[in-house]
Amino acid sequence: MTGKLDTPLLDSVVNPQDLRQLPESALTQLAEELRAETINAVSVTGGHLGAGLGVVELTVALHYVFDTPRDRIIWDVGHQAYPHKILTGRRKRIRTLRQPGGLSGFTRRAESPFDPFGAAHSSTSISAGLGMAVARDLSGSDNAVVCVIGDGAMSAGMAYEAMNNAGALRSRLIVVLNDNDMSIAPPVGAMSAYLARLVSGRAYRSIREVAKQLASHLPRFFHDKAKRTEEYARGFWTGGTLFEELGFYYVGPIDGHNLDHLLPVLRNLRDAPQGPILLHVVTQKGKGYAPAEAAADKYHGVNRFDVITGKQAKATPNAPSYTRVFAESLIKEAERDEKVVAITAAMPSGTGLDLFGQAFPARTFDVGIAEQHAVTFAAGLASEGFKPFCAIYSTFLQRGYDQIVHDVAIQKLPVRFAIDRAGFVGADGPTHAGSFDTGFLTALPGMVVMAPSDEAELVHMIATAVAIDDAPSSFRYPRGEGVGIELPARGEVLEIGRGRIVKEGSKVAILSFGTRLADAMKAAEELDAYGLPTTVADARFAKPLDTRLVLDLARNHEVVITIEEGASGGFGTQVLSFLAGAGAFDRGLRIRSLVMPDFFVEQDKPEAMVSKAGLDSRGIVATVFEALGRDSEAAVIRSA
Amino acid sequence: MTGKLDTPLLDSVVNPQDLRQLPESALTQLAEELRAETINAVSVTGGHLGAGLGVVELTVALHYVFDTPRDRIIWDVGHQAYPHKILTGRRKRIRTLRQPGGLSGFTRRAESPFDPFGAAHSSTSISAGLGMAVARDLSGSDNAVVCVIGDGAMSAGMAYEAMNNAGALRSRLIVVLNDNDMSIAPPVGAMSAYLARLVSGRAYRSIREVAKQLASHLPRFFHDKAKRTEEYARGFWTGGTLFEELGFYYVGPIDGHNLDHLLPVLRNLRDAPQGPILLHVVTQKGKGYAPAEAAADKYHGVNRFDVITGKQAKATPNAPSYTRVFAESLIKEAERDEKVVAITAAMPSGTGLDLFGQAFPARTFDVGIAEQHAVTFAAGLASEGFKPFCAIYSTFLQRGYDQIVHDVAIQKLPVRFAIDRAGFVGADGPTHAGSFDTGFLTALPGMVVMAPSDEAELVHMIATAVAIDDAPSSFRYPRGEGVGIELPARGEVLEIGRGRIVKEGSKVAILSFGTRLADAMKAAEELDAYGLPTTVADARFAKPLDTRLVLDLARNHEVVITIEEGASGGFGTQVLSFLAGAGAFDRGLRIRSLVMPDFFVEQDKPEAMVSKAGLDSRGIVATVFEALGRDSEAAVIRSA
Repeated sequence: MTGKLDTPLLDSVVNPQDLRQLPESALTQLAEELRAETINAVSVTGGHLGAGLGVVELTVALHYVFDTPRDRIIWDVGHQAYPHKILTGRRKRIRTLRQPGGLSGFTRRAESPFDPFGAAHSSTSISAGLGMAVARDLSGSDNAVVCVIGDGAMSAGMAYEAMNNAGALRSRLIVVLNDNDMSIAPPVGAMSAYLARLVSGRAYRSIREVAKQLASHLPRFFHDKAKRTEEYARGFWTGGTLFEELGFYYVGPIDGHNLDHLLPVLRNLRDAPQGPILLHVVTQKGKGYAPAEAAADKYHGVNRFDVITGKQAKATPNAPSYTRVFAESLIKEAERDEKVVAITAAMPSGTGLDLFGQAFPARTFDVGIAEQHAVTFAAGLASEGFKPFCAIYSTFLQRGYDQIVHDVAIQKLPVRFAIDRAGFVGADGPTHAGSFDTGFLTALPGMVVMAPSDEAELVHMIATAVAIDDAPSSFRYPRGEGVGIELPARGEVLEIGRGRIVKEGSKVAILSFGTRLADAMKAAEELDAYGLPTTVADARFAKPLDTRLVLDLARNHEVVITIEEGASGGFGTQVLSFLAGAGAFDRGLRIRSLVMPDFFVEQDKPEAMVSKAGLDSRGIVATVFEALGRDSEAAVIRSA
Repeated sequence: MTGKLDTPLLDSVVNPQDLRQLPESALTQLAEELRAETINAVSVTGGHLGAGLGVVELTVALHYVFDTPRDRIIWDVGHQAYPHKILTGRRKRIRTLRQPGGLSGFTRRAESPFDPFGAAHSSTSISAGLGMAVARDLSGSDNAVVCVIGDGAMSAGMAYEAMNNAGALRSRLIVVLNDNDMSIAPPVGAMSAYLARLVSGRAYRSIREVAKQLASHLPRFFHDKAKRTEEYARGFWTGGTLFEELGFYYVGPIDGHNLDHLLPVLRNLRDAPQGPILLHVVTQKGKGYAPAEAAADKYHGVNRFDVITGKQAKATPNAPSYTRVFAESLIKEAERDEKVVAITAAMPSGTGLDLFGQAFPARTFDVGIAEQHAVTFAAGLASEGFKPFCAIYSTFLQRGYDQIVHDVAIQKLPVRFAIDRAGFVGADGPTHAGSFDTGFLTALPGMVVMAPSDEAELVHMIATAVAIDDAPSSFRYPRGEGVGIELPARGEVLEIGRGRIVKEGSKVAILSFGTRLADAMKAAEELDAYGLPTTVADARFAKPLDTRLVLDLARNHEVVITIEEGASGGFGTQVLSFLAGAGAFDRGLRIRSLVMPDFFVEQDKPEAMVSKAGLDSRGIVATVFEALGRDSEAAVIRSA
């Protein structure tokens, strides 16, 4: 993609110990080299670019000032950690980022001692860091713990819970708030840096301690006021009052790209004797790479790209993505029904709700990284007769589980869950796989649980969800493009709890839930060719289950296979439990339930992950032969 | 329990319309009568007392000022809503609170139009209320929405997520912060009430609007400062800065027991034209009932009690509770292993960690109502080599599910989950049942999932969890007392993934997970008597499953029954999936999986709930007869 970079300083830094040998005067150049290397690496691999470029100087400064890995640095979400990986012994492998067998696109404990905590979902760093800080205190050790968290991640309740608790525990902890959402005008910046340096210094903190000691001898009312006067005086200039109220000592804001501002403040904070500290750092996403600076959104996550032009490689899709089909269908439904509203938790473009929002700005709600609230907010809307579509990735819906149980299911409120990224997701790996939703939703009384087998079915299920107004409902669909089938002009309302036969056979039945149907059809053709005429059915519903269809398949076939792209406990479980209760096993049934394996499948091409999980046509065919006791043929098929 | 109360005013109030006919001067007496009635009712039924007594005046004031049910009042958690129930047409049934077939101990949509949103878990009210407020705006309606939330509930991230979003949406919403945790000194109280009245009034708000309009024409920097000056000036006196930072207009604090303070402020707020408002009200838990005022903790949730003496009825337990056995065993383990630490999310006495905290104050962490944080905080401790026991009720663990998946399971961190209140919980009803944990935990690769069959087994499992240091683990145990078995002096470390045969038989096998074992044994004796010699096994582990045991039972018995006190998708699923994959159904197996039914079981005595679910010995025996095709005998047994 590009020629050899000229990075003499970076070449001399294999790990942070080397970095700490450099004179402070060399760090600006090192940062520039690190930035160039980051851009070059991501141009080859694709991945998260803007976030990493925003923290290049901060990364250098943290590893320079702190004694990593003895001091812990926890990168919230972890997608900004590419420069950190380059500086911590992983430069040689940096062009394997997000590739099969390569480095993770996030921090990961198994990858390096410099990654003390794996991340990938937002807003976990303060909780994890507080745990580490408390562990340090209990162990009588004295290492520093530094959490780096973005301003967006601060909208999650979890971050607030952690700050609240940190404020109460008073353990020594540094939270660096990496704020992309504000700019500092130059004169204010200078004043602010001066103030930050002042208030982070030992002398100032001592005076403050003395004042607090004195004040604590006064009645509580006066004590509070004295404390507040000082906080407010600073908060007035700096905006940190929220954090002070939560018990943090606030320092900032300072320019996160200016090493002359960063280094003295970080040194002061490193040597601070106690308590939780919030350092407010202002940075720019994509800093130092013009195309990324100009369009931070477009360069948040990128495909491979040309460094000179900034042009991203794009595979021409054969079919629209499920996400787009969802968005466009929901827009059509909303045109006909003014009660349809949509909710996203900070993923408007990922869920397609950016399109919905353009069509219906007043009916679209981006609530921030706040899945718990998103679900109950939707329940509130449903309680007033609206038809909320709560569009949340499967992996993030885990954050709203209690709210689904307690505020939606128990109250039978018709919230519709549009579950994107169901199944394997490829380069984002196990942290983002949509594995557990079918299981945790089918467990709930009264929940309608659907999965379309292709994008046309998705259109029907959206229409069906609009129509289901007396129960909560959900439909899950995968990342990526559909199968290319023609889309219906309008979705039809499906009969609740009815599947469909797609292909008739006699010996083997494959009952598929979701988009594994295509591989089921492929497997069926192979099985036909082996002399095993195969029925294929599309379950459509995991709950309520089409018990008539399931019983028919069980009665009229020698082998029944269920398949889904989800963990154990989901659709296959519904089928097994029903059949057991109906006595279908009493006189024998060769039934096999194909689900995700009982390990976290590593990042790879999605189709490779499916194959590794045994959920492709080969896995189906082999399983049929195994069920028939024809193990040697199965072994040949598996090893083909 | 007590004679007829003299409540002439309350007798005239069947619903809030009647209340609103009374002159304002009558409200203090009405509140006193309402308080007396609440005390009397709870003395008969037991339940939550202190919380309701703290909001008697607030309840009267809200229904007097607001046009309920057109205006929505959402009581957070809902356990303080007994006075509200008395005033909203449910006085006649108030002595059925928490009884079988009676009123719920929480708010409930199905119960009354005056309960617009059901509650029972903390901190949902602002999310739900915001959804209702937005629905009102979209519908072009103008009703008020009022959420009443306690200061404890404010520690949950969900409340913060909702406030953050409300601050951004600017929808008209009133949040009443009911603060039990502060007192107002009389002179400050008068000043504060005066200020609250002033700042909640239209004139003041108009001036403020004008100032803001003016300020908005200045550059942003000055605008911010102007806005802050005013906020800080008020915040300085009142402490509301946190809420102002989140975008709320803060009013208060005022005395929540003083109707002369409450009514004018509420009227002003009702007529406020826009935006989210936080009214800070200070109340006293248990107000007006001396025993409850003196010991707010002891009177938070009460048994039946004598109104005059305050003495609570107490059934003498036959055996220690599982909770106490957990606490005492964990203390013993912690005495031997200094790495053992314990975490609770605001339930120290409910989980028994108050005892642990007395023994090891520095190793006990109450993180507040913050399950998401609790789990990842524990993961942080585990990442540093500690052995955290995260003690959370099953129903509340739902709030930390993503963190269990993402921060614990994917990273294989040995966090130990002590899951109390597993299964049915009685009077607290479906919102507090521990139903889903076995399902959502067994789905996770690498998780060890245990359930003791009695309190001695619990002791062993705690020792086992201490020993499992390379994987996350969990053990679930029910509310209430154990079976009375002798406790071992020290727990032994169980072999991972091994169950045990408790009783040998030949025809029927019952495989139990957890404390249903006692009923399984009872059923086995009955089955023996019917000429069906029955094996009973205690699975101990749902994951990893004792596959050898399961296969042996399947091979050597005509009927296999699995039983657990949990929803579909849990232990029985593990058994069915394994057996299907192992080909155990190929030539026939009469297997039945007994789980909680597919509806939310209403409040009742726990044993009645178990019976309704078919999980008692009768249910087991009947199921065996059904599996054998002896349906008429089964029907007789079921109707016995």
